[in-house]
Amino acid sequence: MNRAKEMADQIVRGDRLGVARAISLVENGSDMSQEILERIYSKTGNGYRIGVTGPPGAGKSTLVNKLARFYRNAGLRVGILAVDPTSPFTGGALLGDRIRMTDVELDREVFIRSMASRGSMGGLSKKAKEAADILDASGHEIIMMETVGVGQSELDIAGAADTTVVILVPESGDGIQAMKAGLMEIADFFVLNKSDRPGADQAVMSIKMILGFRSTGNSWTPGVVKTVASEGTGIQEVVELVASHRQFLEQSGGLQRKRKGRLDRKIRELIEEQLQVDFWTRHRQEALQRGLDLVVNRNQTPYDVAAKLISDFRKEVDLHT
Amino acid sequence: MNRAKEMADQIVRGDRLGVARAISLVENGSDMSQEILERIYSKTGNGYRIGVTGPPGAGKSTLVNKLARFYRNAGLRVGILAVDPTSPFTGGALLGDRIRMTDVELDREVFIRSMASRGSMGGLSKKAKEAADILDASGHEIIMMETVGVGQSELDIAGAADTTVVILVPESGDGIQAMKAGLMEIADFFVLNKSDRPGADQAVMSIKMILGFRSTGNSWTPGVVKTVASEGTGIQEVVELVASHRQFLEQSGGLQRKRKGRLDRKIRELIEEQLQVDFWTRHRQEALQRGLDLVVNRNQTPYDVAAKLISDFRKEVDLHT
Repeated sequence: MNRAKEMADQIVRGDRLGVARAISLVENGSDMSQEILERIYSKTGNGYRIGVTGPPGAGKSTLVNKLARFYRNAGLRVGILAVDPTSPFTGGALLGDRIRMTDVELDREVFIRSMASRGSMGGLSKKAKEAADILDASGHEIIMMETVGVGQSELDIAGAADTTVVILVPESGDGIQAMKAGLMEIADFFVLNKSDRPGADQAVMSIKMILGFRSTGNSWTPGVVKTVASEGTGIQEVVELVASHRQFLEQSGGLQRKRKGRLDRKIRELIEEQLQVDFWTRHRQEALQRGLDLVVNRNQTPYDVAAKLISDFRKEVDLHT
Repeated sequence: MNRAKEMADQIVRGDRLGVARAISLVENGSDMSQEILERIYSKTGNGYRIGVTGPPGAGKSTLVNKLARFYRNAGLRVGILAVDPTSPFTGGALLGDRIRMTDVELDREVFIRSMASRGSMGGLSKKAKEAADILDASGHEIIMMETVGVGQSELDIAGAADTTVVILVPESGDGIQAMKAGLMEIADFFVLNKSDRPGADQAVMSIKMILGFRSTGNSWTPGVVKTVASEGTGIQEVVELVASHRQFLEQSGGLQRKRKGRLDRKIRELIEEQLQVDFWTRHRQEALQRGLDLVVNRNQTPYDVAAKLISDFRKEVDLHT
């Protein structure tokens, strides 16, 4: 108990080591992390969260690197979470990315943390959001969450940002269009990186065309910025677009709505998790195993087994309250 | 009630229209679909499920098409589920795929159904598995589930198969390696399609190299088959590999284990769903809204709100039992 309070205090004081340790606890799914997160919650809400996502090789890390430097020069404290939901099996892409980030890493005022999946993708998305809360409570005014955009869990992480930037390259052609479909919907704006390569103007046009199909229910219209992140070209424009999107959100009440939506999802997730813990006692896990044998032998259906376990749960909850 | 029984009977009789209607009910999340699935459950278990997945443009539909024709010629009843989890926003890739499948579609003995995401990806994966149960109960001896392999939900669908085939092309280079990481782990074997293109042998070698890193805990080792599906080259080999994997599973007890694992997950999903329904009564949804306002104003934490709702649930369950 005291340890959690101590760590929460360290975080709120902005202690780097405390922040790093707390994120490790979150990553390892330690019980203490929950208590720490509860304790720091009231200190969150000041960090502005920027999600950066896009296909492998689009230059996410380079862009994030340059943005971090820009914000640092403006005197802001910057935190970076590089989240890699691809399996540890072939991994390595991210390692390469991180090596390229060393010039920012040398700056002690930028906190960088890589988080990789260890099997469970859903879990990673939750942990990344909790790590962002820790960075937020510890005084990071800009929090960037970088993910490879290839699946639902990455969309979840990007969806946890105030402003979501989707980065593409001229080579992202028709073939992987489908793959990016989800990205199209979450982007607050697009960055076409490596725009000194052939096909850049065409790519910008095709993104704009696809954006044209989007309903314009609210008054923010996502645009496209061309960058060559490795040379710093276009970074200023990206910073400006983030700023105008932020202003738009703040003035339209959209920021409040977005954050409320995030809290809504968070509460639902906490409840879902707790219900699972409550439900899957050892005794019901054993009952499931017995039920499975009956189902395999076609003496019961999975629906029967589920119904029986549910009714058993209702009785047990009854006994304990 | 009677209507569900009637439809279940139609399915078990192998009535095409009944099957199509039942899958529509599943797709629309109709209440009746649950009862139908319960009624037909005892008739499932005879269809062999083949998952075919891979990146967009790899030629999944063409391969599935040729395999279907092969199995048909062997006198087997074939069902195909083409599942497209990409958003309906940019969609269209799948439509093109389906158009190429017309020669199989003309054969009345092959049942083909496209299922597309309508927002909820998790939901689609569940519905695809339920549709496979319907095809199974209606006497389809071979059930192929085709998905674009780019995310968790596709892996789920592929994981619902007895044999999972991952299809790649020579062009699937390093850049999208990370994206395919998940695929590497679920493949029972690989098909390198369009293997008449440059780089085919290199691609086969690099797949084999990656496979080399896989632990060989069980005695099945995934191989790689080269195909040019559009010309029918290599189809016989694919069929043979499916057959030897099936034989391996049957003899090693792996098929039983796989199916038991699927049932285990199914029961857990049914329970999770029911717990959510039980939990989110109108009264607790309203309490959540009130709680959210307190959290937004920093008078409570999301953890407080979740804990209160959980304790409220326990009391209510208490009252009702």
